Amino acid sequence: MCRWIAYRGETTALEHYVTEPAHSLISQSIHALESTASVNGDGFGLGWYGNHPEPGLYREVRPAWSDENLRYLCRHLQSHLFFGHVRAATGTPITRPNCHPFACGKWLFMHNGFVGNWNRLRRQVEALIPDELYPSRVGTTDSEAIFLAILGAGIAHPVTAAERILLKLTDFVNQTNPGDRLRFTSALSNGRDLYAFRYAVNDHANTLYYRESADGIVIVSEPLDNDHKSWIAVPENHVVVANAGERTRILPSLHRQQEAAE
Amino acid sequence: MCRWIAYRGETTALEHYVTEPAHSLISQSIHALESTASVNGDGFGLGWYGNHPEPGLYREVRPAWSDENLRYLCRHLQSHLFFGHVRAATGTPITRPNCHPFACGKWLFMHNGFVGNWNRLRRQVEALIPDELYPSRVGTTDSEAIFLAILGAGIAHPVTAAERILLKLTDFVNQTNPGDRLRFTSALSNGRDLYAFRYAVNDHANTLYYRESADGIVIVSEPLDNDHKSWIAVPENHVVVANAGERTRILPSLHRQQEAAE
Amino acid sequence: MCRWIAYRGETTALEHYVTEPAHSLISQSIHALESTASVNGDGFGLGWYGNHPEPGLYREVRPAWSDENLRYLCRHLQSHLFFGHVRAATGTPITRPNCHPFACGKWLFMHNGFVGNWNRLRRQVEALIPDELYPSRVGTTDSEAIFLAILGAGIAHPVTAAERILLKLTDFVNQTNPGDRLRFTSALSNGRDLYAFRYAVNDHANTLYYRESADGIVIVSEPLDNDHKSWIAVPENHVVVANAGERTRILPSLHRQQEAAE
Amino acid sequence: MCRWIAYRGETTALEHYVTEPAHSLISQSIHALESTASVNGDGFGLGWYGNHPEPGLYREVRPAWSDENLRYLCRHLQSHLFFGHVRAATGTPITRPNCHPFACGKWLFMHNGFVGNWNRLRRQVEALIPDELYPSRVGTTDSEAIFLAILGAGIAHPVTAAERILLKLTDFVNQTNPGDRLRFTSALSNGRDLYAFRYAVNDHANTLYYRESADGIVIVSEPLDNDHKSWIAVPENHVVVANAGERTRILPSLHRQQEAAE
Repeated sequence: MCRWIAYRGETTALEHYVTEPAHSLISQSIHALESTASVNGDGFGLGWYGNHPEPGLYREVRPAWSDENLRYLCRHLQSHLFFGHVRAATGTPITRPNCHPFACGKWLFMHNGFVGNWNRLRRQVEALIPDELYPSRVGTTDSEAIFLAILGAGIAHPVTAAERILLKLTDFVNQTNPGDRLRFTSALSNGRDLYAFRYAVNDHANTLYYRESADGIVIVSEPLDNDHKSWIAVPENHVVVANAGERTRILPSLHRQQEAAE
Repeated sequence: MCRWIAYRGETTALEHYVTEPAHSLISQSIHALESTASVNGDGFGLGWYGNHPEPGLYREVRPAWSDENLRYLCRHLQSHLFFGHVRAATGTPITRPNCHPFACGKWLFMHNGFVGNWNRLRRQVEALIPDELYPSRVGTTDSEAIFLAILGAGIAHPVTAAERILLKLTDFVNQTNPGDRLRFTSALSNGRDLYAFRYAVNDHANTLYYRESADGIVIVSEPLDNDHKSWIAVPENHVVVANAGERTRILPSLHRQQEAAE
Repeated sequence: MCRWIAYRGETTALEHYVTEPAHSLISQSIHALESTASVNGDGFGLGWYGNHPEPGLYREVRPAWSDENLRYLCRHLQSHLFFGHVRAATGTPITRPNCHPFACGKWLFMHNGFVGNWNRLRRQVEALIPDELYPSRVGTTDSEAIFLAILGAGIAHPVTAAERILLKLTDFVNQTNPGDRLRFTSALSNGRDLYAFRYAVNDHANTLYYRESADGIVIVSEPLDNDHKSWIAVPENHVVVANAGERTRILPSLHRQQEAAE
Repeated sequence: MCRWIAYRGETTALEHYVTEPAHSLISQSIHALESTASVNGDGFGLGWYGNHPEPGLYREVRPAWSDENLRYLCRHLQSHLFFGHVRAATGTPITRPNCHPFACGKWLFMHNGFVGNWNRLRRQVEALIPDELYPSRVGTTDSEAIFLAILGAGIAHPVTAAERILLKLTDFVNQTNPGDRLRFTSALSNGRDLYAFRYAVNDHANTLYYRESADGIVIVSEPLDNDHKSWIAVPENHVVVANAGERTRILPSLHRQQEAAE
């Protein structure tokens, strides 16, 4: 189980969201409150959009709470759309390529969750990655495989592409009886639009909250401060669509699959 | 605050003490029970004696709980006297030379505690290190400085040398009013004899336990399992002397200083 | 291109082969003489057999030449059969799971070479790994994939299993015209017997030497010292078979494939 | 021996100087041409000035040539004044705090050189650091100690402060007969003005070049490309003064000391 934060809005220094808040992502790395893993010390990462056509990445295998580089970067990097992630590994090695976010072309992705029985399902999930994207498979996580599968499933329509892959994953975990568990709470962006998913099969979904203001939207695994009424919980099996220049929408997603499974 | 374990006895694989017990040092790295810091994820280290005239060291800046190398080494390294340590840093950087144990010649040392107001006292403590040992100052911790000071204070009599330095540290922290705090719970060995200290000034001492059997003695920050009656708590301001070929003794140490301070 | 060393013989401290010789593996890490890459600073690894049923591993992403842990371990670890490897990466990330040697059950493997056009051939090579071994695919290198494929190809007869996979790789690289290059200079062991391969397709093979004495056999990428007449070059397309209790044999391997290709 | 680059001028992405040139700092990390150490793989660092009142730092113990984070950061970080450094250690450990550049308040410093017989002179040099700056001594290098000593020697006049400390270092190395060697080729900045020193005692000074254009000035250990006539060599015992809004000056520095020593 991991913790993450995604921001889209006015260009701002990352420190205002990643390191400064009372219950910042950094403090969640050593003591998360709403996660089954209170310690998220198995590496971390930042992804952000700037002037370069492709997003930037800073990923490290050490815990976020003691990384001096991270503090310097959060002071100096400014962005209108960025991701931050602290990892609690669920079986795959602690390497930089296994840290979130993942980048491919202009896309960023990060994830909190797991595909139950990854050893059984790994080859099936990897087979969803098209050949032309397989060279971008530089790590071994379930999360990166799902990201590349989504990119290959018609990314011009990101929500549809993600739902298409989630449907396949739902089938995969339900191949056995009782089915394996699937938890998918993730963020996806092209540098302009931001999408966040909260979905689960045979299990409860991991928490997801957002807060919107004139400055922008922040989507998080758990609130960054104690002002709980300012944070809105995203319901299970919903997707947050924060397109540039549009009002944020919270849409149901894959409800029928969920109902069919019940 | 850190957690550590020291063993002297029959030659054994390190895994039996470091990785296997229910509440092993590894499990203490992610969830300690008797420490002010429940997470000890700021690096770790092993020190052990074998056939080579000098002890071996394996130290890493990553958390112990996810280090594959550590698991392999604990399976394969066998020793009659070894140290293991997981670190919760108190201000100095997370670097290998700042991880415990420290080695110098045939001596090993590790520590759980701190010298209050290290910024004020650092130069005084470093001045206790003799010139000929100053090249061995490869890190920046208070712990390493104290170790080298003890080595230079007549190490032929280790308890006396340690007490001599602890007296000076006691004076240093009491230079201000109210005095700074000092906590010193440490282990010291020459590969033959094992010493463990539990001492504090202007504060409570960190916990220290030991368990003795026909096979040997284990000294720990907190018990390795739930069989609490098998673990004996070392009183504050006492030293454990486990000399090769002798019965283990628990001796009062520096009581008068403590009384004078009260 | 990497550099490696394999030893089978009397139990000895690793330092006598890894760190002490004039042109030791450590000195090859910063300045190799017979390699297309003079710097082999993209991580390193040790693998060794001891009392535990499975071999030990120590792998790190930092260069070997500056790793203090490696020097301590080479002093203290003793083994009758061990591998050492310094890496010059050919495209896959610098992570511990991508460092050699690789271990699976009682087997160790390390490699110097590459599969030309890995992006094109990766899925074909990974498909050679049987399902039951696919969970052991913890990295992303061509080398690890080949190792697991060999383990799945009838490892009771290691040379035959390796040749079976090398035949398939030969077919894969020859699917295009002109064919891709393949270089395979590797070592494989079960803790008792030691095998070393020198093979190439559409290219020259990487160098391989051995030296045998009453104490044992050392097989290396390049000689460890200037006493060049004591080192015997293994011819291209040959395999070294150093079975426990038998005379070392240097056998031709896959000659017909090579001839057919010419 | 290390390699470094310093830039002051129009705000630009770091990649144009650090990663892109034919003989960029990254390529110097694996194959420097004018250094006694051709491999500079003992860590690296970036320091840069931006909107935050204090400069940013990114330092890592791995070699620069394989660090993905470095490539992303050089694409995305833009600055009007930045430092880049690749390290070849001369005895002190490979840790982040021992990597250059060093930061203290608004000042950045990096160094290529050494203080001969550091073990003998270390305490004398560290004693030059004023008490109020000693908490900023987070590593163990000679370079960081000299930096903090300069900061404490009247940094309102940076050249005078540096010369004052260099005079003391000159005395220190000349305490023995024959004298120890001192090489000091370094850069210093407050975010506005840039200073670079080329000095040596009892030895040749390390190389130093600069190139100036309408866009700004680049000062380097060795040229970044083969257009050698565009690079001007700084003479030994000279200082480059590149103050904001002024013409760059190359001034003689400490000539009398040098003459006295000859």
